[in-house]
Amino acid sequence: MCFRIVIFVLFSISASMAQEPQEYLDFILPLIKEAGKELLTADNYQVEHKKEVYDLVTIYDRRIEDILINKIKKKYPNHKFIGEEESEINGISNLTDTPTWIIDPIDGTSNFVRQIPFAAISVGLVINKEQTMGVVYNPFLNECFTAIKGEGAYLNGNKIKTNGQTDINKTCFTYELSLARNEKYGDMYMYRLKHLTRVIPGIRSYGSATISLCYVAAGRIDAYQCDGLYPWDAAAGVLIVREAGGYVCDSNGGEFNLMDPNYLATSTKKLSDEIMAIERIADEERIRDAKAKTEG
Amino acid sequence: MCFRIVIFVLFSISASMAQEPQEYLDFILPLIKEAGKELLTADNYQVEHKKEVYDLVTIYDRRIEDILINKIKKKYPNHKFIGEEESEINGISNLTDTPTWIIDPIDGTSNFVRQIPFAAISVGLVINKEQTMGVVYNPFLNECFTAIKGEGAYLNGNKIKTNGQTDINKTCFTYELSLARNEKYGDMYMYRLKHLTRVIPGIRSYGSATISLCYVAAGRIDAYQCDGLYPWDAAAGVLIVREAGGYVCDSNGGEFNLMDPNYLATSTKKLSDEIMAIERIADEERIRDAKAKTEG
Repeated sequence: MCFRIVIFVLFSISASMAQEPQEYLDFILPLIKEAGKELLTADNYQVEHKKEVYDLVTIYDRRIEDILINKIKKKYPNHKFIGEEESEINGISNLTDTPTWIIDPIDGTSNFVRQIPFAAISVGLVINKEQTMGVVYNPFLNECFTAIKGEGAYLNGNKIKTNGQTDINKTCFTYELSLARNEKYGDMYMYRLKHLTRVIPGIRSYGSATISLCYVAAGRIDAYQCDGLYPWDAAAGVLIVREAGGYVCDSNGGEFNLMDPNYLATSTKKLSDEIMAIERIADEERIRDAKAKTEG
Repeated sequence: MCFRIVIFVLFSISASMAQEPQEYLDFILPLIKEAGKELLTADNYQVEHKKEVYDLVTIYDRRIEDILINKIKKKYPNHKFIGEEESEINGISNLTDTPTWIIDPIDGTSNFVRQIPFAAISVGLVINKEQTMGVVYNPFLNECFTAIKGEGAYLNGNKIKTNGQTDINKTCFTYELSLARNEKYGDMYMYRLKHLTRVIPGIRSYGSATISLCYVAAGRIDAYQCDGLYPWDAAAGVLIVREAGGYVCDSNGGEFNLMDPNYLATSTKKLSDEIMAIERIADEERIRDAKAKTEG
């Protein structure tokens, strides 16, 4: 009898744990869709201020983050938050084992203010330091990408998969070139791009990290790379890529780190390896040239 | 009395000439919209063959071009055509004074086959060697850009204007990077991009020339540049930019030539001059480096 109770309790705990991420998704999805309406009916594209020259903030960034955080707090008062706007004031908190919502109210604000339909609300949930649930919603194209760890990735409720591309000669690669203005990355980007464009037939640059990640997940593009990012640029999108069967590593080939998220996301590990091999050659050339310049 | 008749005849001729482009637009617009449905209901994304590695052809490219040319021929049997697919067989005809329809059945085929919503049907009409009427229709976003020479540019019937951007430090610049794989342009692209990214905060690359041109016209982006193009990549889009108040020159700063259309399209002439000045510096550096390499 006692044995049966233990089994029952264990089963209940496991069932409740398994259900939790779906419950979080069911809770947050309508709130995100509702927040998307704020963007669709926007009539003030004034930039409130700039963090970096390519990193803009509007009233909608603040408003959407406030709405989402307040509603989540009400439902889950013990949960934590890492939000793009909130982190400007408080800094980025370290992850703990407490469920933590990581929110980008508008990814692609520079597209949003220009009415280019590549902007999205991104919400990721990290539980026990693991990316567990993610939503990326582009209201302009009515595309909602979702994923729960271990349960696959979806676009508007339909299962999606990366396209399984392994051939770099057929690849469509999205590279976030606006960051090339950043002194730290400029030369690296140019050397890598020079070598990559010799073999890769399709290069794109959309100005939205989360949408580009979701395009890898949906099999529309084969690879996406970006440096100099923040947790809110990765919390939902990286989970969606992985749950769609894609591969994500650090932009230098190491293990992806959510709290310092430079990444290369690809349809397959093989494609990642091929891109990385080319980038190593580019990096070596850059270092050699810099050395020759200093010595010469 | 005789004087009055002459006046009347002259007025009638002038009125009929002024009306003509509108009549052509009224005739072609529903045909293009109808053809757009072919793309929306597409279920075969197989590439039939490749012209270049970045230049794909599907059954829809051929089908849409055939539909449009046949219907125009029936209505205007004396008109001429320059079509992307037709020119593969017959070569690109020279322009004459005869009205000539210049057709790209799908601009952005590589996006279309990947179900990336940046692909459009482009139809331009050249009369007396002048770009007179243009339509760019993206059925995926239901955006139809139109222009008649001297009568402004429109998006879904609403007048559009470029955004008047003159400050290169605030510019969003779209550069067609896939062409960097082309040996003729590769180095030029990389040197220019290196210099441009030092001052320009926003870089994009969409993989569709006509949509990028229309984005300049609609004030969404400030500048678009592309080399190695064909008349059908420019016939409609360049007219739409100019009619929206934008500036278009040859990619090297000279006069734009529809029959050899490398171009820089910008919101304003001032922005064009600023971009050109940076590209001259980049070009000089490239030539100097190549010389040093040969000599060294």
